[in-house]
Amino acid sequence: MKYELYYWPEIQGRGEYVRLALEEAGAAYVDVARGPRGSGAMMKMMEAHKGTPPFAPPFLKAGKLVIGQTANILLYLGGRHGLAPKTEAGKLWVHQLQLTITDLVLEIHDTHHPLGPSLYYEDQKPAARKRTVEFWSERVPKYLGYFEQLLTDNGGAYVTGRRLTYVDLSLFQIVAGLRYAFPRRMKAFEADIPGLVGLHDRIAGRPNIKAYLASERRIPFNEQGIFRRYRELDG
Amino acid sequence: MKYELYYWPEIQGRGEYVRLALEEAGAAYVDVARGPRGSGAMMKMMEAHKGTPPFAPPFLKAGKLVIGQTANILLYLGGRHGLAPKTEAGKLWVHQLQLTITDLVLEIHDTHHPLGPSLYYEDQKPAARKRTVEFWSERVPKYLGYFEQLLTDNGGAYVTGRRLTYVDLSLFQIVAGLRYAFPRRMKAFEADIPGLVGLHDRIAGRPNIKAYLASERRIPFNEQGIFRRYRELDG
Repeated sequence: MKYELYYWPEIQGRGEYVRLALEEAGAAYVDVARGPRGSGAMMKMMEAHKGTPPFAPPFLKAGKLVIGQTANILLYLGGRHGLAPKTEAGKLWVHQLQLTITDLVLEIHDTHHPLGPSLYYEDQKPAARKRTVEFWSERVPKYLGYFEQLLTDNGGAYVTGRRLTYVDLSLFQIVAGLRYAFPRRMKAFEADIPGLVGLHDRIAGRPNIKAYLASERRIPFNEQGIFRRYRELDG
Repeated sequence: MKYELYYWPEIQGRGEYVRLALEEAGAAYVDVARGPRGSGAMMKMMEAHKGTPPFAPPFLKAGKLVIGQTANILLYLGGRHGLAPKTEAGKLWVHQLQLTITDLVLEIHDTHHPLGPSLYYEDQKPAARKRTVEFWSERVPKYLGYFEQLLTDNGGAYVTGRRLTYVDLSLFQIVAGLRYAFPRRMKAFEADIPGLVGLHDRIAGRPNIKAYLASERRIPFNEQGIFRRYRELDG
């Protein structure tokens, strides 16, 4: 079975957490909207599922299943591709961590869109500056400090212990994204999270991820995604 | 087995979605921080789980399991108390809807905290006004329109069809909360969501929920929770 991933073709966005899991697993998939059928195919799929339509991309077609919400897709893939424990307790724990990353991703998005997702960044710059200051003084230390502590307490290899899970792949993306969006702030902060920086580097060096990052399948960071580099927000 | 729910004792907040599920199921549980052991017991629990600590309340102790993140707790409870389908596809679909409600809840919170959760509301009033206007013009119609359409397409009884799930209980809370926080705006909007209003009323009339709402276990809405009544935000 070949998976079909449906997500906006121009950005990493929330789809990237799914792409990283599919790539690490070496799973066969098509990034549909990036192919010849384009975003139109994605829109058609959203309308085709009367009674069970996804609210928004990303969603994954797996045989007859159509699964929406990033963390939900990872919950599904984790069990099938060895990217999560097999036990119920282990599955719930890894999913719980992914949901905490989901919260963090939304807070990252809100640094440039504090007044809501429907307004342009240009129309909310002063609010974005305030939110970003608060994000870096309060929220980044809280979230990344939590994951750093987990790494330390669980042996230092991966966040939940000796085996890689999809949460580690997502944390790679968080570190890479914060480096892109806030190069100055992140540089100053990295001394506080040596474990996560090391995790980022180890993930980047894994054969499947390394090949993916070097390929055209990896969309470059840009100012339409979650992680946006706006000099005026970088302190 | 008696569940132990750990959540802030003064607010409905995110814990309320779990309380509603436990009450509808008639499950035996203790709302720990509301008892004699207070919030201190909650803090102790968070520190006691080295290696697998919850990031934040709510979390549920179920035997040896400690489960965090509201939607994750509901995923666990749904399967055990007939509040979600038994099939994998059904479980994923209901969880997907709950994750969409999670997104909505955060957007509701951000109407009064657009500049971040660590600042006081009083320090972000102008931004809150802007965000609230955008929330009601763009986001409420998008989210509630989506659930209204699901209700219609799936027969009108419950969001996923003929059987109640934890998602219906959460939608009850969304309607009740929006009525509390934004009485004027919500009154004007309700004509657009007759199905959801009907669902709210049917849930409120279910024996276990009715008894719960009339009891002291239901904390009244107040201005420390997610749904806050600030006259200046109600248009």
